[in-house]
Amino acid sequence: MTLWQRVAAAKVFDLEQPRFAGMPIHPAHKPGYFYALHRRHRDSYRPETFGPRSGASGVLTMMEHSGTHIDALCHQARDLTLFGGVRVDDVERTDGYTAHGAETMKPLLGRGVLLDVARSKQVDALPPNYAITAEDLDGCARVAGVEVKPGDVLLVRTGYGTRWADEAAYLHAAGVSKSGNLWAADKRVVAVGADNMAWDSMQEHDPETNMMLFGHVHLLVTHGIHIIENLNLEELAATGHHEFCFVGIPLKFRGATGSPIRPLALVD
Amino acid sequence: MTLWQRVAAAKVFDLEQPRFAGMPIHPAHKPGYFYALHRRHRDSYRPETFGPRSGASGVLTMMEHSGTHIDALCHQARDLTLFGGVRVDDVERTDGYTAHGAETMKPLLGRGVLLDVARSKQVDALPPNYAITAEDLDGCARVAGVEVKPGDVLLVRTGYGTRWADEAAYLHAAGVSKSGNLWAADKRVVAVGADNMAWDSMQEHDPETNMMLFGHVHLLVTHGIHIIENLNLEELAATGHHEFCFVGIPLKFRGATGSPIRPLALVD
Amino acid sequence: MTLWQRVAAAKVFDLEQPRFAGMPIHPAHKPGYFYALHRRHRDSYRPETFGPRSGASGVLTMMEHSGTHIDALCHQARDLTLFGGVRVDDVERTDGYTAHGAETMKPLLGRGVLLDVARSKQVDALPPNYAITAEDLDGCARVAGVEVKPGDVLLVRTGYGTRWADEAAYLHAAGVSKSGNLWAADKRVVAVGADNMAWDSMQEHDPETNMMLFGHVHLLVTHGIHIIENLNLEELAATGHHEFCFVGIPLKFRGATGSPIRPLALVD
Amino acid sequence: MTLWQRVAAAKVFDLEQPRFAGMPIHPAHKPGYFYALHRRHRDSYRPETFGPRSGASGVLTMMEHSGTHIDALCHQARDLTLFGGVRVDDVERTDGYTAHGAETMKPLLGRGVLLDVARSKQVDALPPNYAITAEDLDGCARVAGVEVKPGDVLLVRTGYGTRWADEAAYLHAAGVSKSGNLWAADKRVVAVGADNMAWDSMQEHDPETNMMLFGHVHLLVTHGIHIIENLNLEELAATGHHEFCFVGIPLKFRGATGSPIRPLALVD
Repeated sequence: MTLWQRVAAAKVFDLEQPRFAGMPIHPAHKPGYFYALHRRHRDSYRPETFGPRSGASGVLTMMEHSGTHIDALCHQARDLTLFGGVRVDDVERTDGYTAHGAETMKPLLGRGVLLDVARSKQVDALPPNYAITAEDLDGCARVAGVEVKPGDVLLVRTGYGTRWADEAAYLHAAGVSKSGNLWAADKRVVAVGADNMAWDSMQEHDPETNMMLFGHVHLLVTHGIHIIENLNLEELAATGHHEFCFVGIPLKFRGATGSPIRPLALVD
Repeated sequence: MTLWQRVAAAKVFDLEQPRFAGMPIHPAHKPGYFYALHRRHRDSYRPETFGPRSGASGVLTMMEHSGTHIDALCHQARDLTLFGGVRVDDVERTDGYTAHGAETMKPLLGRGVLLDVARSKQVDALPPNYAITAEDLDGCARVAGVEVKPGDVLLVRTGYGTRWADEAAYLHAAGVSKSGNLWAADKRVVAVGADNMAWDSMQEHDPETNMMLFGHVHLLVTHGIHIIENLNLEELAATGHHEFCFVGIPLKFRGATGSPIRPLALVD
Repeated sequence: MTLWQRVAAAKVFDLEQPRFAGMPIHPAHKPGYFYALHRRHRDSYRPETFGPRSGASGVLTMMEHSGTHIDALCHQARDLTLFGGVRVDDVERTDGYTAHGAETMKPLLGRGVLLDVARSKQVDALPPNYAITAEDLDGCARVAGVEVKPGDVLLVRTGYGTRWADEAAYLHAAGVSKSGNLWAADKRVVAVGADNMAWDSMQEHDPETNMMLFGHVHLLVTHGIHIIENLNLEELAATGHHEFCFVGIPLKFRGATGSPIRPLALVD
Repeated sequence: MTLWQRVAAAKVFDLEQPRFAGMPIHPAHKPGYFYALHRRHRDSYRPETFGPRSGASGVLTMMEHSGTHIDALCHQARDLTLFGGVRVDDVERTDGYTAHGAETMKPLLGRGVLLDVARSKQVDALPPNYAITAEDLDGCARVAGVEVKPGDVLLVRTGYGTRWADEAAYLHAAGVSKSGNLWAADKRVVAVGADNMAWDSMQEHDPETNMMLFGHVHLLVTHGIHIIENLNLEELAATGHHEFCFVGIPLKFRGATGSPIRPLALVD
């Protein structure tokens, strides 16, 4: 069986949420997303002059951190230093970063692992603002009989993917705590993702570093691990698959701090 | 070997051109693309209050037909009718189409075939404005010993991918003629793509229908075949591969007439 | 005294609300307003190469009906017909209207009259959703001893200008009822304006025509009278002036349905 | 005669160029301007449900330095310092400047003086890239019998206002040289303006400071004098008026580095 035949025969799980004005947006990334259709079919329809053809198109205004997306390494800094010791001041330009921009992200093609923390706690969704611990992740992996390995893409399900039409509820999704982030980085995954706005617990403050969003620094800056946000893991989780072929392909927006993405889970 | 192992082991050819302000844009889709970095790291860097973390992000303004992209079926109409007999007037909204929008495009996962017409004519790039005929495609396939089959993604190389930094030259790339489009549709492919602005020959007028861009109607409207534009086929072509696993994943911009895409060719 | 000397000597009342992301926006015009500073001074500061000069600039994304603005006549239609019998279908283009666009609005230079309905009812602001009647306007004018005359710009104060930082409250500002609109049109003014989102009462339904926003049709479409929204009338009202020199200058955005405006009231 | 009567009776010269996609844009401010009409009348026209009313509107994407506009003082810096000694680093934010932003610009209401340098040299337009000297300005004022005084708005005509539809030609308009800028600042005007892209000569390099656009620093930073660009002075110049009532009202875009403006010259 050729590779393409095998890929074509796989069951495909679509992990992207739909994109529309009104989807939940992080306060720092408002207004987030807007699409205006301005060229409509009747505008260019002049059958006597141009025959029966007409075209339509629009314009997107969009923050790169709207909708399902992946963070480029330039998105976060620690003491004004990016991953690999790159000084922010050396690479910041009016049109983005000359290092670690979205265009430097390689396609993610490899093993994906889903830790369905909500299911492991026998709830549809974790409690609002719940901070997922290393113990939660570890226990969830153990029960599922799946091991997170170096090079994996690690997906964590909070159950908030069903709240995509309700910004207020969605912004209080569960997220990953500091201990969960330390655990994930220790596994040496290449990327993580969750069905929430920020991967991290948005309410957790780390007293040691005095930071919010500990994982954003620990993963992106310290370890060069990408973060995928706003995943829809419902359908995949419902099937009970814990291991799959992950396909996630960022767009090469030069210098941008992230990219929209439509990740897939392929199952043989 | 699991699917993910096989995918991870494959050689990956990236078929997307880089995205930046200044890349070639079709006149109908000006201004096309703009990225502004406005949240910079120093803006949120207050170590005494918030610890060492800082974030950066920007805003994209972009036509969905800028850069490497795939056309949704609502992009083109024939006598104000979309693919499948959908009347434009029934589905056109201020924020896009309620039928055949970008969000309805399935990921393209399957066999890809490259017809390297430029190489078959022993040139780096076809002459400006050259219209690729059915005979060209057929001969190219024969010489390469590759057959285009139903369900394939058909890629055609003009050699203009190297002109991506030169809009004036790029807009005069070779394209596919009417006969080439009839040939492609007859093969019952699911999508076509080329390393030029419009897939079609942009200069060819079809006297029978009185249309420009014959393929846009014949493929998108009549046959429901998607079109991918502005591919970079240089690296893939250099290897001589004609058959591969094609991976192309449109984003689900609700109602939009197309989506940026970063297609990959995977070779075992 | 020359004209410029007299103008320069006048007391100037600024009737524009400040523009910023987060100001109140009508639901139909979301996201409304966004400014991103992307070219910063350090970006172009290279003293050894270019000397001490540097420049900064940004990009605005904005609906023309955000902030203090004036409606062009193409903004509203009655049975798909604009003011003067212009059929919408004849003048609608992808980039706006070829008739009655913002660029056709003349500067408003002439007599302005303020009817301070809130003060006439001895309140800081009218009750939420209050619909101002012809009787209210007439009584207010009588008490103030001011007459509204043909060619005037008529300003009506609800008192909601102080709610500019509070979208929820502002969207429930008082507005002008049907009878108030009939009264204003009868006066043959050239423009009207108010310190609210829509001039009209946003809650009033006209049973006769089955329309909301009766005044938008009666003024813009039937009578060609422009509407100015989101005025700040607080300072002007506080002085007790009812009559002044109104200066309001729309921008010539070709084809647009309105323009931001910073109207002034000049008092000798 | 009341002030409003006198203003209403004045002859009005409109000094704004029309705004449209395709108007000349400075390379640093590309793409400059784009308007998309996306809410069209038929979209909301449902006569049986909502009566005969419908509305239309669009979205503007625009650099604040596109079209006829006025520079805020934060637009330029000298050694990272704005007018009045304000350090750039203290006032630069993701959404603009907290000092000297567009919202701090007062309406310009007072004496305007036109120096028609093109006419004084008996040409329709000055030679491409011509740099207007202090002597040119002085001679022009003398011949016209007009004196530039403190508090004036000084307008200089190059004759390139007629090239507004031709970006290539317009970008080579004549501009004001260093000596001309020194002359203007010495006059203690409050603002200057010209019918070109940058007021300054865009080709002149000042060997003393090693800067281009000397006037941008000398006027905006050193003297706090605003600059208006892309004026249309043709109609005003044709009448031979040298002195008039200038009315120019910037919009209060909070933090922005400039504002579109439609200046008027009023003549009794």
